[in-house]
Amino acid sequence: MSECILNALPLTDGERAQFLAAAPGVEQRFVPLMDDGGLVAPLPDPAAAEGATVVLGCLPPAVLSASPTLKWLQTWSAGVDVYLKPGALPDGVMLTSAVGAYGPSVAEHMFAAMLTLMKRLHRYRDDQLAHRWGDLGQVKDLPSSVVLVVGAGDIGTSFARMCHALGARTVGLKRTVCPPPDGLDEVHTLDELDAWLPRAEVVALALPQAPETVHIMDRRRLFLMKKGSILLNGGRGSAIDPEGLNEVLSAGRLWGAALDVTEPEPLPADSPLWDQPDLLLTPHVAGGLHMEGTREQIVAIALENLKRYLAGEPLKNRMK
Amino acid sequence: MSECILNALPLTDGERAQFLAAAPGVEQRFVPLMDDGGLVAPLPDPAAAEGATVVLGCLPPAVLSASPTLKWLQTWSAGVDVYLKPGALPDGVMLTSAVGAYGPSVAEHMFAAMLTLMKRLHRYRDDQLAHRWGDLGQVKDLPSSVVLVVGAGDIGTSFARMCHALGARTVGLKRTVCPPPDGLDEVHTLDELDAWLPRAEVVALALPQAPETVHIMDRRRLFLMKKGSILLNGGRGSAIDPEGLNEVLSAGRLWGAALDVTEPEPLPADSPLWDQPDLLLTPHVAGGLHMEGTREQIVAIALENLKRYLAGEPLKNRMK
Repeated sequence: MSECILNALPLTDGERAQFLAAAPGVEQRFVPLMDDGGLVAPLPDPAAAEGATVVLGCLPPAVLSASPTLKWLQTWSAGVDVYLKPGALPDGVMLTSAVGAYGPSVAEHMFAAMLTLMKRLHRYRDDQLAHRWGDLGQVKDLPSSVVLVVGAGDIGTSFARMCHALGARTVGLKRTVCPPPDGLDEVHTLDELDAWLPRAEVVALALPQAPETVHIMDRRRLFLMKKGSILLNGGRGSAIDPEGLNEVLSAGRLWGAALDVTEPEPLPADSPLWDQPDLLLTPHVAGGLHMEGTREQIVAIALENLKRYLAGEPLKNRMK
Repeated sequence: MSECILNALPLTDGERAQFLAAAPGVEQRFVPLMDDGGLVAPLPDPAAAEGATVVLGCLPPAVLSASPTLKWLQTWSAGVDVYLKPGALPDGVMLTSAVGAYGPSVAEHMFAAMLTLMKRLHRYRDDQLAHRWGDLGQVKDLPSSVVLVVGAGDIGTSFARMCHALGARTVGLKRTVCPPPDGLDEVHTLDELDAWLPRAEVVALALPQAPETVHIMDRRRLFLMKKGSILLNGGRGSAIDPEGLNEVLSAGRLWGAALDVTEPEPLPADSPLWDQPDLLLTPHVAGGLHMEGTREQIVAIALENLKRYLAGEPLKNRMK
C-alpha cells in the first residue's frame, strides 16, 4: 500500500518544504488545523482524511476510529489519553505523542503560578482591585522549600530544574525509579507518595491521565499534605478530587493551590472552587501554543518521526 | 567616652547572648522594635536613646538628629535615604546599612511578579473572580527574553541570577562598570540606559533613592521601552514618573508593570494606576521581614559590624 500523509500541523513555508523533501513521491495533504495546541481539532472536510495512512495532528477519534488505511498517528499533544480509550483508534495503529514539546511551557507556567501563590500576589491582586493597600504578612520562598514533583517526566523534570535553580530541594516520584536527572535531588517511586506528602512545602502534579492517576490526590491524601503547603496541577484535572480539594482549602489546611487543569473542564459554573480565595485558576493554558518555541518543537518531533517511519525505524515518543 | 549601645533589633535569646558577649562591660539597652523591617520605627520611650553612642536599628531621625552622643547608626534597612537628608543625623555620625540582607527576599518577589505578568496570571485572576473561563492568548517566557537590570547591586544581582538560571539573557546597568558578577551576562554604566531600553523584554529597577535616580524612568524613557515589554520596580517608588507610567500603560505600549514601591506611598486613592489592568501592585512588601532568613541576616550584619566597631576596624556597608 502506498503512503498518504495528512499533515494537520500549522507550518511555515520552510517547514512545509522540509516535509515535502522528507517524503518525495508520497502524497501529502496539508490541512493546518492546530490553533491552540493540545486539544483535538475538528476536520472541516472529513474527506481530507480518507485514505490517509499517516496523520500528523490531533484529529477527532470519530474521524480516525473507522479508518481502514490508518497506520500511524502522531499527535501534537503530549497527553494521548483520548486516543488510548478503547475504539478510539483502529487495532494495530501506532500512536506517538509530542511529549517533550510542552515541558518548557507548562513547567514555566506551573513555576510562575507557584511563585504567585508563595508571594500572595493573587491576594494582592484582589486587594488592588478593591483599592486596598495593606500588608498580607509572611511569604514563602524556594530556598526553604522541599518541592515534591509527582510525575517526574518531561514537564515535571523541567519544573524541578527551575525550582532547584532557585534553591529548593527537589524530590521526584515516578512509576519506575531511575538515577535523579538534572534538577532532582532524589527520585523515588510513586508508592512513596503517602510518605512524602507530609514533608513537602510544594506538591506539584505533572501526571498523565491513566487509571492509576485518577483522583490520586483524594481527600485522604489532600489532608496528608503538610499544613501551609502548596498544591499545583499542570497535568490532568482528574488527578485531584475536586470535592476533597474544596474541603481541604475551606479547612485552611493549605497555603494555596494553583490549577491549570480541572475536573471537568471548563470548571462548572457552580463549582465552589471559583471562589476559594487561595486557589489560583487558569483555563488549561499552560501548554498549547502560548509560548514561543512550542510549535517549532512539535513540528520537529513530527518531522523526525516521519523520517523514521519512512525509513522503517522505531518511532520516538511511542505510546501504543 | 564610654560606649552605650541601643539595640532595637528583635533578637532570639541566643542572639542577645551573642551581642552581650561581643561587648563585655559595655552598657547595652535592648528595645526590640522592628516588626516589619525596612521602615523607621517609633521609639515608645525616647529616654531609651539618651546617651547612646551606637544605635542598631531604624529610629526616627527626630530622635537621632539632636543626639550629642551618637557616633554610629546601623540601620535594619537596605536603603538609608531618610538618614542621608541634611540634618537627619548629627555631623560626623557613621552610617551603615543592612544592604545584603534583603536581596533574596526582594529579588524573589520581583521575580515572582515578573512571571505573574509574563503568564498573565493577574488577568486570569481577574477572570477567576468574574467566573470567566477563557484563553487570554500568548504568554512571555524567560528563555526568549533580555532582562535589563537597572541598578545591579545586591538586589538587582540576585534578581538577575534567577532570570539567568531560567534561561534569560541578563544585562546590568550600574554607576561604575565592573566585571559581570554571576548571573549577569554583561554590565554597563547607567549612561547607556537609553540605548538598552528599546532592546529589553524586561526592565527591572532596583535603584537606591538618590537625586540622580528620581524619575530616572520619566515619560520619555518609558516610551523608549520596547513595545510589549515589562517594567518592574523593587527599589524606590521615586524612580518612576507615575503620570508617565499611567500614560504608557494607557497607550498599550507595555505588556505590563509590577510595582512594589510607588510615588508616593501608599499609592493615593485617586491614582489611576490602581485600575490599570496590566499593572500589578504590591504595597512595599517585597522586603521587610516577610521572608524567612531576612531577620537573621540583618542581625548577623549588625553583630559583625558591632565587633568591628569595638575593635576599631572599618565597618561594612558604610553609607556615610
